[in-house]
Order: sequence, then C-alpha cells, then structure tokens
Amino acid sequence: MSAIRRRGLMLVLSSPSGAGKSTLARRLLESDSDIVMSVSATTRAMRPNEIEGRDYLFVSSQTFADMVRKGEFLEHAHVFDHQYGTPQKRVTDTLERGCDVLFDIDWQGTQQLKERARDDLVSVFVLPPSHEELERRLRSRAQDSDDVVAKRMAKAADEISHWPEYDYVIVNDDVDNAHDKILSILKAERARRTRLVGVGEFVAQLTR
Amino acid sequence: MSAIRRRGLMLVLSSPSGAGKSTLARRLLESDSDIVMSVSATTRAMRPNEIEGRDYLFVSSQTFADMVRKGEFLEHAHVFDHQYGTPQKRVTDTLERGCDVLFDIDWQGTQQLKERARDDLVSVFVLPPSHEELERRLRSRAQDSDDVVAKRMAKAADEISHWPEYDYVIVNDDVDNAHDKILSILKAERARRTRLVGVGEFVAQLTR
Repeated sequence: MSAIRRRGLMLVLSSPSGAGKSTLARRLLESDSDIVMSVSATTRAMRPNEIEGRDYLFVSSQTFADMVRKGEFLEHAHVFDHQYGTPQKRVTDTLERGCDVLFDIDWQGTQQLKERARDDLVSVFVLPPSHEELERRLRSRAQDSDDVVAKRMAKAADEISHWPEYDYVIVNDDVDNAHDKILSILKAERARRTRLVGVGEFVAQLTR
Repeated sequence: MSAIRRRGLMLVLSSPSGAGKSTLARRLLESDSDIVMSVSATTRAMRPNEIEGRDYLFVSSQTFADMVRKGEFLEHAHVFDHQYGTPQKRVTDTLERGCDVLFDIDWQGTQQLKERARDDLVSVFVLPPSHEELERRLRSRAQDSDDVVAKRMAKAADEISHWPEYDYVIVNDDVDNAHDKILSILKAERARRTRLVGVGEFVAQLTR
C-alpha cells in the first residue's frame, strides 16, 4: 500500500427530467462504496416512506433562513413553495476523509457549487438519446395532456441548453453503457494529480 | 445511436524503468480496440523479430534529419547513438477518425508533445509501489552489479521527479488495479465535453 491519499470530489449529475439520471445515480451508489449521496435540507413536509437524514434533512423555514444567513449552504434554491439546499459541513467532512459526494442538481445548483468549490467539482451532463425518447419519458409519468408534455419539454430544453457548462457529456442511449462511463469518470478523477495528497513524500521514499 | 462524434486523444504513459509500464500499455491495447500504439521512426538497425511499421519505422540518418528539418515530428530525441521520433501525420490521421493513440515516452517527449498538441494530450505517470520493489525490478534485468543498479536508480529518480507535470498519477501496486485505472482514464477522457463534436446539433434535434 502506498501512502498516497486523496481528497474526495464532488460529482454532479445534471440532466433534464426524462434522461434517466435517477437510475444512473442509484446504480453508481450501488457499485461504489466510496461515494455517498448528498442529503439536502428542505422546508417541505416529510412524505410517507421518507426518512429524516436519508432522504432529506427536514427543517423549519426559520431554521432554513438562519442557515442561509450564516452561509451554511453550498447551494440553495426555491422550488415551488419550498426551499432546498445543500449544507456545507457534511460535504466538507466527507471530502476530507477521502470519500466522494454525489449531487443530483440542476444547472443553477451546479453554478453555485462551482463558485464555492471549483477544484473539488466534477460535473457530468446526461442527455437523453433522442427527441422521441425524451418525449416518451416525459409523457409516461401519467396520462398527460399534450399541453403538459409541451411545458415539460420546454423546461427540459432550458436545462439541456446548459450542457456547455459541464466537464463531461454523456448520452444515455444504454443504461449499462452510461453507467460504465460515469463510473469511469469517477475512477479517473480520483487519480487526477491535483486531488492526490502525499505524492511528494511517497516519491521521496521511492528514490531515497 | 447519437450523432455525437469525438476527436481522438493522445494518451501518454510515462514512468521510470521498472514500474511495469510496458505491461500496462500492452494490457490497454488488448482491452480496447479504439486505441493504437504510436509507432516511432528510428535510425537504429532493425533487430530480429522486429517488423517495419509495427515496431518502428526504420529510416536512414539522412531521412530522419530531413523529417526534423520539415517539422514532421511531434517529438524526437537522441538516445545513445540513435535518433527516435514520432511522425505527426499518422497520429493526426488517427485522431481525426476518432481513434486514440498511446505513447510510451519519457518526460522530455511528453513536454514536446504538450507544446505541439496540448488539447489532445492526456498524460499519466505510473509510479512503482515501493523503493524495494523498484530496486528489485531494476536489478532483475540481469545479474547486475550494485554500481549498475545505483546508476539505474539515479536515472529512475530523475524521471520520477517529473510526476508533477502529468494530469494523472497512479501507483502500480497491483497490475489489474493499475490497468483498471488507466482504462477508466481513457473512457472518461473520451466523454470530456471539449473533445466531443456535434453536441450542439444533437441537442438542437433533441429539443426541436
């Protein structure tokens, strides 16, 4: 065993709804034990089957506002009537013990993370395989009207327009293939020189 | 299938003698059909078992000098009594058809490649697992005197001192593990946004 350690990284997966991102995130967490899902704080009520600390940290609006004021969020956003945010401390602690954190956030959250932690961030944009497949997935959520689907498509198009802001772009035309690419990105980025700690000392021992 | 294509990349493996780089290069070529070994031109004589165009392009000193003068080499070096160099055209043709090229070169060659083709270059430095293992491998080449081994160790130390110039650093403490890391780096770098061609057009179709 070498004495080289590494600082953890923050892996962001972004995509429009209907690109299969949630499945890819779950697969990644299942196949690699050194990466954990980021847990957001939210002001919305807990739903059945949700677990405090696993799905979300459920906090009051007052607590959330205090956390914003104290700068405790890496990113936060207002979505419909509720607030969502990523508390910094838990992420920082995870990175410092050499583990990675997975984020399932949109382009706006990614921009905020970049401002706070550019060197630790690795961002991946997941694209659906085709227009037809995207529409099919946006529709299959329920028996939706064309109008509802058109609105979702417009929202997807807006999210997709931000692909040039990401480090990596993958097309989810096959879930095994897309999973393999994301896992490769994770493994590769762990070996990036700038993330390694103690190489100088290790090399000094090698060539003593 | 998406219409996204990619430009090939130049993957450089560098290491001191005795770090197992040749084995890792062979494993990578065997496990992935979209990467080919760079073939150098050389002025030295062909050895038994070597094949023109597979192992080297064997050229006269005059031809080599002409190629240098015309700027046809991506990198070239004088090693002992002979010249070695990487002809640019074959590499460029390979990259343009979306295949990758593997280079087994030292830090000086890597620096020259960087000057000529920074955007296409991905560089990996392979470290041996320990001082003892490095010495063992440097010695096992023959029944060598301590003096010869000490000279090789000094040369290895000089090469190793250039690790901070590389994109990735891996320790070859287990050949399967090191191979998996290099293959992951190759797969990840293929999905890097800046290497992809046609994403804009693909996205326009997605969201039409």
